Amino acid sequence: MATNASTSSPLRIAIAGLGTVGVGVIRLLGTNRDLIAARAGRAIEVVAVSARERHKDRGVETGSYAWEDDMTALGARDDVDVVVELVGGSDGPALALSRAALKGGKGLVTANKAMVAHHGLELAEAAEAAGAPLKFEAAVAGGIPVVKGLREGTSANALTKVYGILNGTCNYILSEMEETGADFAETLSEAQALGYAEADPTFDIEGIDAAHKLAILAAIGFGAKVDFASVATTGIVQVRAADIAQADALGFVIRLIAEADVQDEDGTPKLLQRVRPCLVAKGHPLSSVDGPTNAVVAEGNFSGRLLFQGAGAGDGPTASAVVADLIDIARSEVGAPFSMPVDQLQALGPAQPGHRTERTYLRFTVKDRPGVLAEITAAMRDADVSIESLIQQGREHGGGEVLVAMVTHEGPEANVTEALALLEGSESLTGEPLVLPILPA
Amino acid sequence: MATNASTSSPLRIAIAGLGTVGVGVIRLLGTNRDLIAARAGRAIEVVAVSARERHKDRGVETGSYAWEDDMTALGARDDVDVVVELVGGSDGPALALSRAALKGGKGLVTANKAMVAHHGLELAEAAEAAGAPLKFEAAVAGGIPVVKGLREGTSANALTKVYGILNGTCNYILSEMEETGADFAETLSEAQALGYAEADPTFDIEGIDAAHKLAILAAIGFGAKVDFASVATTGIVQVRAADIAQADALGFVIRLIAEADVQDEDGTPKLLQRVRPCLVAKGHPLSSVDGPTNAVVAEGNFSGRLLFQGAGAGDGPTASAVVADLIDIARSEVGAPFSMPVDQLQALGPAQPGHRTERTYLRFTVKDRPGVLAEITAAMRDADVSIESLIQQGREHGGGEVLVAMVTHEGPEANVTEALALLEGSESLTGEPLVLPILPA
Repeated sequence: MATNASTSSPLRIAIAGLGTVGVGVIRLLGTNRDLIAARAGRAIEVVAVSARERHKDRGVETGSYAWEDDMTALGARDDVDVVVELVGGSDGPALALSRAALKGGKGLVTANKAMVAHHGLELAEAAEAAGAPLKFEAAVAGGIPVVKGLREGTSANALTKVYGILNGTCNYILSEMEETGADFAETLSEAQALGYAEADPTFDIEGIDAAHKLAILAAIGFGAKVDFASVATTGIVQVRAADIAQADALGFVIRLIAEADVQDEDGTPKLLQRVRPCLVAKGHPLSSVDGPTNAVVAEGNFSGRLLFQGAGAGDGPTASAVVADLIDIARSEVGAPFSMPVDQLQALGPAQPGHRTERTYLRFTVKDRPGVLAEITAAMRDADVSIESLIQQGREHGGGEVLVAMVTHEGPEANVTEALALLEGSESLTGEPLVLPILPA
Repeated sequence: MATNASTSSPLRIAIAGLGTVGVGVIRLLGTNRDLIAARAGRAIEVVAVSARERHKDRGVETGSYAWEDDMTALGARDDVDVVVELVGGSDGPALALSRAALKGGKGLVTANKAMVAHHGLELAEAAEAAGAPLKFEAAVAGGIPVVKGLREGTSANALTKVYGILNGTCNYILSEMEETGADFAETLSEAQALGYAEADPTFDIEGIDAAHKLAILAAIGFGAKVDFASVATTGIVQVRAADIAQADALGFVIRLIAEADVQDEDGTPKLLQRVRPCLVAKGHPLSSVDGPTNAVVAEGNFSGRLLFQGAGAGDGPTASAVVADLIDIARSEVGAPFSMPVDQLQALGPAQPGHRTERTYLRFTVKDRPGVLAEITAAMRDADVSIESLIQQGREHGGGEVLVAMVTHEGPEANVTEALALLEGSESLTGEPLVLPILPA
């Protein structure tokens, strides 16, 4: 890294991307300037910036910084120690800049979860080769220091499980649906109007954003090579107001849960990574996580269960995480981005979910006619799925459609899959069944 | 520090104190040996130990380690890089060893909250002078990485407030009282029988242990010199089952809350540090912290509210924190123990609590005779305390004693103090009134 010889020289940074987070970083560095210098042991100074539009009122003064039209050029400037990449996108300019910065021996701080999920190992290798710091606290769970929490806080532990609420948009929508009784589409529109969901919400509501973050946490927590491609991802589009009401009656809330663990399969450790809406028992710490809040639980073999909770997004919290990374770099407290060198991360194959057991919530939409319940329960019996409770809801939804919801006893996931296969093509069903696992206590 | 030249040489440690935590550290270093070496970049090896009794079955093999009868001698051994102090006690042998270790240029890792609260600045200065690492994650909130959370996770923020549940014994007792309806003395005895409270529980139930931890967190969070002497501390001995029942009826639970903030008084920043039982609204993240769990909330000017939660004590969690510190040292990721050099920590004077406003729960035990309520409410009126709700409870407690409980509107704390002064010496009161603040949402 092109660090200055004396630690009392400022750490000189370039910022690529002047959206809300970039502006937040500039505002934070100004507001907390003295305090940051005291903690970092030296000042942190912005020397150059790049964004799509140069002349735009952003509410902060940027005229004193050097400007680059081509952001990749930030990675080549001699007066820059660390590049802060806040452009986003897994590939394209963000990746080009990140590669250029690390290759040039500069530090890289990024909030780009998609890029780290897809190219994190390559970037970590480039950082190792250059002896340059690479940090991405802001890529996971906004202002919550959970990358640090897993990299350093739980570093003495073999983790048994990492899971949590990693997407604020989905959590906002689900807790709003819970609050208002409104259905998904309506709540999404409101969330968009309020700025809690983007115009194109696909990455959030399909669970992809949470999957990016989970892949990063799983790599750090389990010492595994980042494997975004293997995250089994289900979004929240299928969750209806009626499901939330049923869950409530049964003592649960519904949350989009990202979870990872490592279990032996025939003597080989395998990594299971999934993002799914789950039923969470009221009383579980994650059940009271409402609105755009994020929370991560890490279970260590000595630490026990640890919970990290806070704002999962927003310019202030994200800037807080970006600048914490910069302070670590200014303090020279940086090491392997994924907690160990890349060549020591294990290539764990993806686990077979069918091998696990769990309790499951199942919801069928069926025609209101005789014999339907018998058909469903017979399929359950034939697939050896044991039913703990069952609710058939009347015709409130109109059109002769009836909801049948049930909770199973704990059993192999494969059995539930088999039961659904037995029912596939049944003329009694009016839509795809919804399967929601119940998060263990 | 007497570090080995190559980072692939083991980090050699000495352990003083082989109680449950010391044994936990040895067990952890054995169980997670390979993983720790991968994350730390080198092995962590115990080379020497000291304890009161040499020959005692501790369930782990210690015969291969060098033995010192005098633990202070651990600090002088040439084959030791870091001393792990797990003896306890603010002064005495623990302090002598800690001074000796740092003076000899060795690193020091300690779980000793009392020593850090009383002598943390002196030890940090000694560490700075010697260029040796000093770390004490295990001194606060057991396995929760909250020293790291404040030192590094929220480092970009000016904190507005740090507060939480820092004593597992008190939290266990209060949540048990809530669960069972039993009174304090009975619940304490049970907690002692179950190992959740010590034979001499004074430090825990009087709030002193929580005050030690708070003083450490406040120093890190606010860049202040550690000032344990100024922590205003009230324990939980006065809390009755009836108070918990009243709180419940009003929508609250009672928790021992440690809180610190900095506010201007006549233009000068002052540090307020207090440990007090508080009413916590159900729905607040701290209200669902039950049993021996700890939780810390840090509110930053950019991060917003962050919550760290987990096991506050126990050999596994505490060992997890001790070894995380050792891994940081092995990685050379260490800097100022209190987040900035000692000479930059501010000597903030103690704040005057009377300047703050809050809502308050007040409970009086009074004689069952006419005019008592009028006397109490007149004192409230004369001191300008506005009553939000009032409950007078019948003679369930027998002996002609009646409980009067009330919640005030938000107002100056000084007014409540004045009201109680007006009632002092009143023949209507049969005991000291109990004043519990209501934790703001």
